Amino acid sequence: MNYTIQKLAEYFEKLPGIGPRQARRFVYALLNKDVNFLEQFSKSILGLKKDMRSCPECRRFFESKNNENCQICRDVNRNKNILLVAEKDVDLDNIEKAGIYDGFYFVLGGLVPAVGSEMPSEVKMKKLFEKVKKEVVAKNLKEIILAFSATPEGENTALYIEKILEPINKKFPIKINRLGRGLSTGTELEYADSDTLKNALERRG
Amino acid sequence: MNYTIQKLAEYFEKLPGIGPRQARRFVYALLNKDVNFLEQFSKSILGLKKDMRSCPECRRFFESKNNENCQICRDVNRNKNILLVAEKDVDLDNIEKAGIYDGFYFVLGGLVPAVGSEMPSEVKMKKLFEKVKKEVVAKNLKEIILAFSATPEGENTALYIEKILEPINKKFPIKINRLGRGLSTGTELEYADSDTLKNALERRG
Amino acid sequence: MNYTIQKLAEYFEKLPGIGPRQARRFVYALLNKDVNFLEQFSKSILGLKKDMRSCPECRRFFESKNNENCQICRDVNRNKNILLVAEKDVDLDNIEKAGIYDGFYFVLGGLVPAVGSEMPSEVKMKKLFEKVKKEVVAKNLKEIILAFSATPEGENTALYIEKILEPINKKFPIKINRLGRGLSTGTELEYADSDTLKNALERRG
Amino acid sequence: MNYTIQKLAEYFEKLPGIGPRQARRFVYALLNKDVNFLEQFSKSILGLKKDMRSCPECRRFFESKNNENCQICRDVNRNKNILLVAEKDVDLDNIEKAGIYDGFYFVLGGLVPAVGSEMPSEVKMKKLFEKVKKEVVAKNLKEIILAFSATPEGENTALYIEKILEPINKKFPIKINRLGRGLSTGTELEYADSDTLKNALERRG
Repeated sequence: MNYTIQKLAEYFEKLPGIGPRQARRFVYALLNKDVNFLEQFSKSILGLKKDMRSCPECRRFFESKNNENCQICRDVNRNKNILLVAEKDVDLDNIEKAGIYDGFYFVLGGLVPAVGSEMPSEVKMKKLFEKVKKEVVAKNLKEIILAFSATPEGENTALYIEKILEPINKKFPIKINRLGRGLSTGTELEYADSDTLKNALERRG
Repeated sequence: MNYTIQKLAEYFEKLPGIGPRQARRFVYALLNKDVNFLEQFSKSILGLKKDMRSCPECRRFFESKNNENCQICRDVNRNKNILLVAEKDVDLDNIEKAGIYDGFYFVLGGLVPAVGSEMPSEVKMKKLFEKVKKEVVAKNLKEIILAFSATPEGENTALYIEKILEPINKKFPIKINRLGRGLSTGTELEYADSDTLKNALERRG
Repeated sequence: MNYTIQKLAEYFEKLPGIGPRQARRFVYALLNKDVNFLEQFSKSILGLKKDMRSCPECRRFFESKNNENCQICRDVNRNKNILLVAEKDVDLDNIEKAGIYDGFYFVLGGLVPAVGSEMPSEVKMKKLFEKVKKEVVAKNLKEIILAFSATPEGENTALYIEKILEPINKKFPIKINRLGRGLSTGTELEYADSDTLKNALERRG
Repeated sequence: MNYTIQKLAEYFEKLPGIGPRQARRFVYALLNKDVNFLEQFSKSILGLKKDMRSCPECRRFFESKNNENCQICRDVNRNKNILLVAEKDVDLDNIEKAGIYDGFYFVLGGLVPAVGSEMPSEVKMKKLFEKVKKEVVAKNLKEIILAFSATPEGENTALYIEKILEPINKKFPIKINRLGRGLSTGTELEYADSDTLKNALERRG
């Protein structure tokens, strides 16, 4: 195995879901592209952090172009009363694409792992706390929506946030909600787990 | 291919999800069982309809043993005010196993297909109508839960039932509800469809 | 869960690849068939062993109809010089369907497990030994083809048979061959394992 | 969707097997890496073509370091009598890794598509022809191994090469072989296709 191929393959292996074999296929695919493609691709990666920055309000990545805050956080038509907390940028993208929500966001950056594990550094819990505090003091915020995946880590994270926001919540009356549980599109009754059935029954309407 | 093997394989092919190849594997598996197994298996199939009957109240299959109605329909401790309409017996089994519901049931036997197709004979829509009528006249019924899979056919069936029950509903004030939609166990925000996200957001709490 | 349903489901669970859930679906599917179907299905299972028997020559199952040997073993046009040893009836069916072989067969009934495990009773090793002995004494047999799956158990079984036939082989010059290894239809070079590549290279032509 | 994210995602989509969704996940993953990682990754891509070149003898990519030919083509201990023609670099890597071959290689760059389609420009058929001609004239070459995947395109390519090498083959006696077909590791007799069974039977031994 060539060193040059191996080295580049190792960078590709750092991408989510990519193993050594597929990483190597990527390198060979690049070898078959022309120099111009490689230059553009390389430049696009190098420029990524120059063009993009993390919004100081919601922590999502956005194309700054001399703006301090992201497009959503600058949008005066959005509902200041609601803050939806998501795990990651793609979750936010998916909600925006659905066109079902007009409040503001906060991207946490990760989930709180199972008991016993340490909190990962990418989980911006302190920044969330400060953001919420700032908004409640400014009397903007009436509701926080914890919009995490319906997984043990997602539930754990919601629980954790509910707990650290308790002191704020006692002084300022805000609602802290989770996304509704029930049948998701395609769920078949025959194969649904007890939890889902229970939620679907309780939230019938 | 032997005729005897072929014939038995064709019966197995009538079972849900079984193709020609697996059907033939079943026959060869049976050839390797002893005569006693075949006799018991055969007898068990033959006796199925003798031991089991369809409950005249809820249409589910039950072991009659000289009882006219099934165990659930005979249970005086169950809540007479709610009737859950399910597609099939296994759906009912799954709900019972979850231990989350203490009302009564009606097994419809199938779903209403997409527009244009004829209503399948196994869908007991008339029997459902009569059952509901009987219960509302007896002043038992306060709520009907349409508990179908979150599929186009399931939605279609709920819509259909809501429509045919309209006249009864106008005279007798009963609630007709569907199971709650939202995130089911395991749903990841990143991959959730717009419908599921919308439902999860609307039914947050 | 009803006892009658449970009991029949347990018979279905004895079929290869069928778990409790699918077994129960089969029972409900049968409940929705008419009595006539159940009678025919039941009769077909009961009659299986009456109509079928194991051929004393090759051990495969066949419809006897007063014949002692199976159709293949009775076929005088087949090549008496070759005996192909297969694991099970469906393997034999698959080879016959391909129309590529006109010798005789022996169905072993199973494979020799990894070292340490006991020989399963369904593996008819002694019957194979006797069959081979009979045919070499009758000067019919010139070649034995060990046609097992390219799995560790298949290789193990071939090895085992080669060993127990050694004494016969010393007295009577017969060839004992295995199926050729190499690229099977669809094999991609990129994903092929070392063994397959080695065999494909050695048997190039 | 941001323009910067979209643009980089489109480059990732050019890699084999990557759709829009995974491409976007890659970009977000990169956003969460530090600047140093991006710089190294970017540089590694940019330098790929500077460090690597296509060997003029076998057409595989190698790290030149001032060598004209690749390491394999420079190796005087390799068997000059055999030339193995592979579709792509990863196929060659896989064969080398297996340690089963010590002749030389030629990387064709692609396969000949089904009849009617045009020959893709990456298939270096002319270069192969010239390479073979050079080697036979130099009296080095005694055998060519066409080592393609056992797919219709692979077979098609072998057929095509056999045809264009006919004139050379008439003047100089070289063998043109294909990889052996048969059971590949893991193939089960029950599920093997007719072609594989036929090849396995013919090449038994």
